[in-house]
Amino acid sequence: MKVLVLGADGYLGWPLSLRLAIKGHEVMGIDNLATRRAVEEIGSNSAFPLPSPQERVKEAKRILGVNIDFSIGDITNKEFLREAIKSYKPDAVVHFAEQRSAPYSMKDLDHAVYTVRNNLESTLNLIYLVKDIDPSIHILKMGTMGEYGTPNFDIPESPFVDAIVNGKNDKIFTPRWGGSVYHMSKIFDSYFLAYFNRIFNLTITDIMQGPVYGTRTSEIVEESLRTRFDFDETWGTVVNRFCVEAILGIPLTPYGKGGQTRGFLSLEDSINALTLLLENPPKREEYRVVNQFMEIYSINEIAEIVKRAGEDLGLDVTINHVENPRVEAEEHYYNPERKVLPALGYKPKKNLAEEVKIMIEDLIPYKERLERYKTAIMPKTKWKS
Amino acid sequence: MKVLVLGADGYLGWPLSLRLAIKGHEVMGIDNLATRRAVEEIGSNSAFPLPSPQERVKEAKRILGVNIDFSIGDITNKEFLREAIKSYKPDAVVHFAEQRSAPYSMKDLDHAVYTVRNNLESTLNLIYLVKDIDPSIHILKMGTMGEYGTPNFDIPESPFVDAIVNGKNDKIFTPRWGGSVYHMSKIFDSYFLAYFNRIFNLTITDIMQGPVYGTRTSEIVEESLRTRFDFDETWGTVVNRFCVEAILGIPLTPYGKGGQTRGFLSLEDSINALTLLLENPPKREEYRVVNQFMEIYSINEIAEIVKRAGEDLGLDVTINHVENPRVEAEEHYYNPERKVLPALGYKPKKNLAEEVKIMIEDLIPYKERLERYKTAIMPKTKWKS
Repeated sequence: MKVLVLGADGYLGWPLSLRLAIKGHEVMGIDNLATRRAVEEIGSNSAFPLPSPQERVKEAKRILGVNIDFSIGDITNKEFLREAIKSYKPDAVVHFAEQRSAPYSMKDLDHAVYTVRNNLESTLNLIYLVKDIDPSIHILKMGTMGEYGTPNFDIPESPFVDAIVNGKNDKIFTPRWGGSVYHMSKIFDSYFLAYFNRIFNLTITDIMQGPVYGTRTSEIVEESLRTRFDFDETWGTVVNRFCVEAILGIPLTPYGKGGQTRGFLSLEDSINALTLLLENPPKREEYRVVNQFMEIYSINEIAEIVKRAGEDLGLDVTINHVENPRVEAEEHYYNPERKVLPALGYKPKKNLAEEVKIMIEDLIPYKERLERYKTAIMPKTKWKS
Repeated sequence: MKVLVLGADGYLGWPLSLRLAIKGHEVMGIDNLATRRAVEEIGSNSAFPLPSPQERVKEAKRILGVNIDFSIGDITNKEFLREAIKSYKPDAVVHFAEQRSAPYSMKDLDHAVYTVRNNLESTLNLIYLVKDIDPSIHILKMGTMGEYGTPNFDIPESPFVDAIVNGKNDKIFTPRWGGSVYHMSKIFDSYFLAYFNRIFNLTITDIMQGPVYGTRTSEIVEESLRTRFDFDETWGTVVNRFCVEAILGIPLTPYGKGGQTRGFLSLEDSINALTLLLENPPKREEYRVVNQFMEIYSINEIAEIVKRAGEDLGLDVTINHVENPRVEAEEHYYNPERKVLPALGYKPKKNLAEEVKIMIEDLIPYKERLERYKTAIMPKTKWKS
């Protein structure tokens, strides 16, 4: 299979590229390196030093013996993306090339506009170009479980759902409500994918993924193969941030009451699941929605797990709830459906409690580097600024 | 009241500016004249010749004795919009400055991207600038009944609605499903308005309006005061297009079966209702949704009404269903709620059958001009291109 990975320099994009290459697929990666710049913009950096894309590709060849093509470019430039798809002729395009931080999108007007523009225009470009060049190409797009918000119903794993509205039965687009401009941009992406699936007969997997944690996949066997790891208030997801806080002796910082509940999964499980979905595409012209997560935890539970793991490793870990900078429900119902991955036989390989220990062990050697970006960890980006 | 009208050169923006000025309000209009250019781009033009904005303002002064400030500029430029709001200090901002054509948005990728960019960035700019400058400013934004699609339930006139989803009760964002990139962009606008109403405590009226027809309001007493009137397949709404077809001896062209049903209103009633909503703003920090239409008709009924009106005026009018270039339900349930305008005591002043005769009479003197743009009337923009 030939796979074009958009956003191949990212937390998921790089290990997915390695995995696909190791499994014998042809991989071409594209990235505009926007995340590298945007993380530096807020005074932070990856926990692990990042080789340049050119060095990454060389190291993948040297260590794993695989060939990955890599091209630097921006897919909001439709001519660049057209050339890439036309010349590479992929069987599948993976679209990770979005601004992926909720706090970043909420900083101010410019960051809001940038997020909407980048995410919607990249998606529209991809939709129209796949339609023009070869509508049989499987589009696998990264969405987020956060598109659903925290509803009182069991979140369906389907684009449309039976509902009774105003007393009458109908099939409606699965209700969505986002908690930031970033989340809204992902909701809008889903509207477009569901719409153009029907209009242009496209074949799409739209992944509603929970927060990912972890430092490793089975291909990450040397430092030079590591993927980026963000831990600051803007770019770090909660488990990753807590692990770094534990190492730096900063109290773990649940926002508000900490009853916020989400579905989590390890980096290894994310990459496994993505690979499985690429190798088992939906039926031609199907719009397949996947709720992708493995374990459900509240933020308080996450904090307790990281605390115990840290203490087992001799760290002195405390928990200190801080004022919630976000506007979100801090206690709520949460029960999303999961059918697609189980039906494909998927079983998670990792669990949070064990993986967190490995993460802390992986991160401890970088403590001096992490200290340098300490000031970027505590929440500064307030939703109601 | 001081009102800043964004999109003041448009079909609704100009007569609303006249009405507000006549009623003693201070009016500043802004427009980038994009619709003038975009209508010419597809080889069409307004049925009535349009004076320049400067001439319009002069004529309004000469004939009606009112002062309207007018400034040419693009509100997707945030510095331009910031200056306008800061210096003018309006009590209300009317946001009509959007790309308003579904077929235009469906022409190709560039038109899709332009529509999303123009509509979402103008709305985001307005939201953030009102928050920064004065959150008490009333934002009155033009949406469309088309945001709801054609559901089987009675369309609520509220941002959120009680529903049973997957067997459980919840309050959800009123379900929306758009039939074009344009409609999707309006849905996304509504998500942002509903969201930022909560985050920034903004005061908003979001108008879900049906298709407007008509050539007149009570202020349009001479040719130089006329508002633009579009009749081509891209920019003309159905009643306006049918009236011109009747005059030109082209068969009226319902798309497909013609059972598509919508809520319509006259230009005069639209302007009356908008003025009433401006003069009766919602409570501070309220997000008020208004379903704004007066009469419900199917396209077949519209065609019959225009046919009869034309025949009464001595025209030879036929009806010829053409292949539907759009993807839409051609027969469906349609029952939207209306409470807000009736609660304000609003009663429609016009009805379709009478108004259509006046429209045809108004348009007949321009027959030679209409002939020039005849080729722009028949549907060319196909959704499944």
